[in-house]
Amino acid sequence: MASQERIIVLGGDGFCGWPTSLRLSREGYDVVIVDNLSRRKIDVELGCQSLTPIRPIERRLRTWQELTGRTIGFHNLNIAEDYHELEQLIEAVRPKAIVHFAEQRAAPYSMKSPRHKRYTVDNNINGTHNVLCAIVESGLDVHLVHLGTMGVYGYGTAGMSIPEGYLTVKVDIDGVDREIEIPYPPHPGSIYHMTKTLDALLFYYYNKNDDVRITDLHQGVVWGTNTEETLLHPDLINRFDWEGDYGTVLNRFLVEAAVGHPLTVHGTGGQTRAFIHIRDTVRCISLAIQHPPARKERVKIFNQATETHRVRDLAALVARLTGAEIRHYINPRNEAPDNELVIHNEQFLELGLNPITLSEGLLQEVIEVAARYRDRVDQSKIIADSRWRADIPLDREGRGLQTLSPITQTVNGH
Amino acid sequence: MASQERIIVLGGDGFCGWPTSLRLSREGYDVVIVDNLSRRKIDVELGCQSLTPIRPIERRLRTWQELTGRTIGFHNLNIAEDYHELEQLIEAVRPKAIVHFAEQRAAPYSMKSPRHKRYTVDNNINGTHNVLCAIVESGLDVHLVHLGTMGVYGYGTAGMSIPEGYLTVKVDIDGVDREIEIPYPPHPGSIYHMTKTLDALLFYYYNKNDDVRITDLHQGVVWGTNTEETLLHPDLINRFDWEGDYGTVLNRFLVEAAVGHPLTVHGTGGQTRAFIHIRDTVRCISLAIQHPPARKERVKIFNQATETHRVRDLAALVARLTGAEIRHYINPRNEAPDNELVIHNEQFLELGLNPITLSEGLLQEVIEVAARYRDRVDQSKIIADSRWRADIPLDREGRGLQTLSPITQTVNGH
Repeated sequence: MASQERIIVLGGDGFCGWPTSLRLSREGYDVVIVDNLSRRKIDVELGCQSLTPIRPIERRLRTWQELTGRTIGFHNLNIAEDYHELEQLIEAVRPKAIVHFAEQRAAPYSMKSPRHKRYTVDNNINGTHNVLCAIVESGLDVHLVHLGTMGVYGYGTAGMSIPEGYLTVKVDIDGVDREIEIPYPPHPGSIYHMTKTLDALLFYYYNKNDDVRITDLHQGVVWGTNTEETLLHPDLINRFDWEGDYGTVLNRFLVEAAVGHPLTVHGTGGQTRAFIHIRDTVRCISLAIQHPPARKERVKIFNQATETHRVRDLAALVARLTGAEIRHYINPRNEAPDNELVIHNEQFLELGLNPITLSEGLLQEVIEVAARYRDRVDQSKIIADSRWRADIPLDREGRGLQTLSPITQTVNGH
Repeated sequence: MASQERIIVLGGDGFCGWPTSLRLSREGYDVVIVDNLSRRKIDVELGCQSLTPIRPIERRLRTWQELTGRTIGFHNLNIAEDYHELEQLIEAVRPKAIVHFAEQRAAPYSMKSPRHKRYTVDNNINGTHNVLCAIVESGLDVHLVHLGTMGVYGYGTAGMSIPEGYLTVKVDIDGVDREIEIPYPPHPGSIYHMTKTLDALLFYYYNKNDDVRITDLHQGVVWGTNTEETLLHPDLINRFDWEGDYGTVLNRFLVEAAVGHPLTVHGTGGQTRAFIHIRDTVRCISLAIQHPPARKERVKIFNQATETHRVRDLAALVARLTGAEIRHYINPRNEAPDNELVIHNEQFLELGLNPITLSEGLLQEVIEVAARYRDRVDQSKIIADSRWRADIPLDREGRGLQTLSPITQTVNGH
């Protein structure tokens, strides 16, 4: 790789964006972060904070520079609003690739109220569209790498394994079955997931009409917190979400165990989800940048996940490791109580990804982080109070989901 | 129909919205128009005007009231911005149905510049999303009838006839072909068309998650201008677009013939398009309102078009009727030079639509309207100067598409 290759990371201050920026900087790219710090502001709105004491972005970058001698640029822009600044930045930086994490990324947050639904749609769609429009306007051949979600496929795929973005089907044309490949029919399960399916259509169009090179990464649920780079110094620590809106399932269980809160299983816990460790996320982004689609090739789609697990099995595993109790709550989502999930992820394996899978050692590492910072957790924020429909009951105070009566009894993991 | 049934028409001052509002009022519905007059403001921006001298909305409504004794309400709201006013209006009116025309609806306008692309995406997606969000928030069972476009299907359907929204395909599951029905894979040909495919995903989601009843009308190219109701008084006259951005193909040819401008055929004119007369548009909307989908039924999709024609055949027909010349220009769009198009439209026929098809009498009526108002046409605005890609050449002045050299010679229709 030429040492002067530049990458813009949109959303480079966030949970995936920060460790990715460090990784790419360490690999020798000149990295420029664009972030409007919206995730930190949402912490203020929700009255929460990262489990880990993350530093202001300026201090993060100064420490990185002092440790490694490498400079990462930073621009505080709102890509959904500051179109002209974004376009000028792209023209000035002339990046090889733009990595796009700059979206509101929590399904429960997107369902809290009309304001949250509307913010998520407005922010995510205008942000993604502005990036595409600015790339075309710049006249540069920039590879856009976008962080999507496995959730665009839906979870009701009855016996079918999930392909990487494209589905082969047969269509009857004049009585003859003809085989065609189509974008996998989207099946979003929340406003947030819906915005990712809208993004996919923006990509489809800009790739077809303007030959923009695009990679869309359908990522599973991320767990873990540290990467090799964030471990280099306490100032580089990555954020760690644990509360009802942003805390994704496995990390949330590990924090709950650390603070002595029952593990919060929604419904029966029969949901199967795809997972990936944060260290594999940053590796996958790097691999995607190294392997852009060819000019005029269609949008390249990877399933960025390494394994699947049933939620109740994860709860049982964490309970066994920690002695935590398990408690079932009403599921705020509109979804089947149980689902199977089989995914294809051969493309990243073929590019050399050697997946990190669930191991007690790695879980223990997260448990230790959670234990170290447990005083930073406000237990009243653990139970989600977002709900997908008005007829899903909250608790007596009107916030926090009701525990499910028949299985209210806690189950000790030991 | 109960006489007190109320309908909100979003975009009720526009080309389709205005005659629809009159029709529904005449049928006995209490009609409330919501419009921010954006189309009239775009006329100002483009330095154009409707061929026909349309009156201010207040005068239109006053005359309608004086003629028929029926009142149509009017609220000047921007549905993409004024969310709370929209929600309050829905809660106050408690409509049986909301008809949604309130989108930027010209493909060439959507391609003029980054500002126009971004406006079209922002306006159309936030507008549609606000309507859906407000319906859910109101808690009312409102049927949303949306004007979409045949363009969402794309025009490269090689031998397949276009179904009404859903496509039956076979998928291989464990070696066995299983038949499933999926939303027709979208294939948008412009930023404008892309917004309609994004709308379709919003509908899919809100129907699935919140049981909103939705009908999406995939409309062909509209021609004609008058309906029974707009003919009742000169103050009720409908708008008629003729210039490069908003003038759709058949109406544009008829105006060109009336003002002595060559008929502007893009490329070879081998494009086949679906058409519908404005009088059938208003009938279809009325039929759609009368036949809502059942509660919990999926999004109902109609193809709202009555016939298909090849552009060059329409040019030849208009040339024969009027003596106009035909001139070929560079096609500003990214599309195949020729396409076949076979569409299904049985659903409206089964509901009793008796289609108005292309006849010399109706063409003559439009030619007479065009001749009456031809002094209102600025011939310099006829040639489109939007283009789908920067490498499509404009004329020497950098605006207006180049005529195609080998076929620059005009062809006399006689």
